[in-house]
Amino acid sequence: MTGRHAGRLWGLGVGPGDPELLTLKALRLLRAAAVVAYPTLEEGSSFARSIVAGFLPGGQRELPIRVPMTTERAPAQRAYDAAAVEMAGHLEAGRDVAVLCEGDPFFYGSFMYLFGRLAERFPVEVVPGVSSLTACAAVVGQPLAARNDSLAVLPAPLPDAVLRARLAEADAAAIIKLGRHYPRIRALLEAEGLAERAHYVERATLPEQRLVPLAEAGEVAAPYFSMILVHRRGEAWRWPKD
Amino acid sequence: MTGRHAGRLWGLGVGPGDPELLTLKALRLLRAAAVVAYPTLEEGSSFARSIVAGFLPGGQRELPIRVPMTTERAPAQRAYDAAAVEMAGHLEAGRDVAVLCEGDPFFYGSFMYLFGRLAERFPVEVVPGVSSLTACAAVVGQPLAARNDSLAVLPAPLPDAVLRARLAEADAAAIIKLGRHYPRIRALLEAEGLAERAHYVERATLPEQRLVPLAEAGEVAAPYFSMILVHRRGEAWRWPKD
Repeated sequence: MTGRHAGRLWGLGVGPGDPELLTLKALRLLRAAAVVAYPTLEEGSSFARSIVAGFLPGGQRELPIRVPMTTERAPAQRAYDAAAVEMAGHLEAGRDVAVLCEGDPFFYGSFMYLFGRLAERFPVEVVPGVSSLTACAAVVGQPLAARNDSLAVLPAPLPDAVLRARLAEADAAAIIKLGRHYPRIRALLEAEGLAERAHYVERATLPEQRLVPLAEAGEVAAPYFSMILVHRRGEAWRWPKD
Repeated sequence: MTGRHAGRLWGLGVGPGDPELLTLKALRLLRAAAVVAYPTLEEGSSFARSIVAGFLPGGQRELPIRVPMTTERAPAQRAYDAAAVEMAGHLEAGRDVAVLCEGDPFFYGSFMYLFGRLAERFPVEVVPGVSSLTACAAVVGQPLAARNDSLAVLPAPLPDAVLRARLAEADAAAIIKLGRHYPRIRALLEAEGLAERAHYVERATLPEQRLVPLAEAGEVAAPYFSMILVHRRGEAWRWPKD
C-alpha cells in the first residue's frame, strides 16, 4: 500500500437483464467509478456489461475478466487471481473499481471470488440488485412465496435424491443454473407430479425472454440464465391477463 | 366495465428501505401513475410510502390501505376487499394504479392479496424490486449462497421441528418475519450450533439499520422487518473492512 487513500471496491448488482431494473444507487456508482470490471465469456461478450452499456459515460477504464467456462475450477481460479491483481493495482492507486454483477452480487454471483481475494485488503461495499429469482416470478405473474411458505433455492447440478427430498418439503422452489441439466430436472419434476405447478423461464425481463408452463415446455436448449419456478401449494394463482 | 380503456394495476417493488435502491423502472412508473396505493399501519404511517416520499411528484391520488395487524385473518381480508373495490373504480375509469410494495411484490409481499382480487379483471404488471434477502446479505458483507449451495427461506412462525429439519439440510438459510418469534429462533439456532455462523439484521439499508453476529445479539425487540441469515457452510468469509 502506498500512503495514498485506497480506492473502494464496489460490487454492483445490475439486475436480471432489463437495463431499467438497475437501481438508482448502482447507476450513480457505475457512472462515478474510475474502473469498471465485468466477467466476459472467452470470446469477449459480457452479459453484465450489455445491461449497463447505455449508461456508461465514456472515458472509464474497463477491465474485462475472461472466465473460462469449464467444469474444472483451476482455470477460473487463475482468471480471478489475475483480475484481483489488476484490480488491486487500481485500488492501491486510489481508483474505485466497480464490478458489474448480473442480478445480485451475493446471490450465487461470481463477485464473491473477487470479494474473497480483495476484501481483507481494501474497503468493499455491495449494492444489492434485483435477483433473477424475483424477476422470474414477476414475468410469470405468480407470487413466489407468501405467508409462512418455505422457499427453497436449488441449483440444478445437485443430485436427484437431494432435489427430490427438498422439493417434497418446500412449499415453493426455484431450480436455478439449469443449462445442460434441464432434461434431467424436467423428468424429475414430472416424476414427482410437480410439472403442473412449474414454469420454465429463460432470459427474464429481456426482449428475448421466454416463459412457458413446464408441462408444455418439451425439449429446450436451456441457457445458464434460465430457471424453473415450482409454485406454492394450495390456492391456485391465475396468470394475469395483459 | 365501461367502454373506456381500463387502467393498469402495477405492483412496484420499492426495495428494502434505502430510497436509492428503487429501480429506474419503478421510479418511472411511480411518477406516471394517476393513483398511488400503499399499505399503512392502523395509525396511518406507511413504510412503503416513506421509501418513495422524496420522489412523489405531487398531484397524485393516494390510496392508503389500512391493514389491521392481528393474528386473525378476517379483518385484513376485509381491508383488502375494500381497497380492491376502490382500486377497481380507478381502473375502470382508465386510471393506472401503482401499488407500492416493500422489497419485491411477489416475495412474501402483501401485494398478492390485491393481485388475487383484481388480476382476473384488469391488466396487471409486476416490477420486481431488491428484496430484503439480498439487501441483508449486502449489508452484512457476506455472500448469501454460492456454487451449488441450497438456500432455504424460512418464515419464523414455522414450528421448531420444521425449522430444525430445514436448517439441518440447507447450506445457507434466511429466517424472515422474526418479530415476536426472535427469542425462540435464537434459542433454536444456539441449540443447533448455528449461532456462530448467523447474523441478525434489522432495517437493512436504512440509516437506523442494525446488524450483529447472532452470538452477540442477546435479547432484541425484533421488528417485523428483521431477519437472521445463517451463512453458508464451508469456507469462512470474512467481514470486510470499511
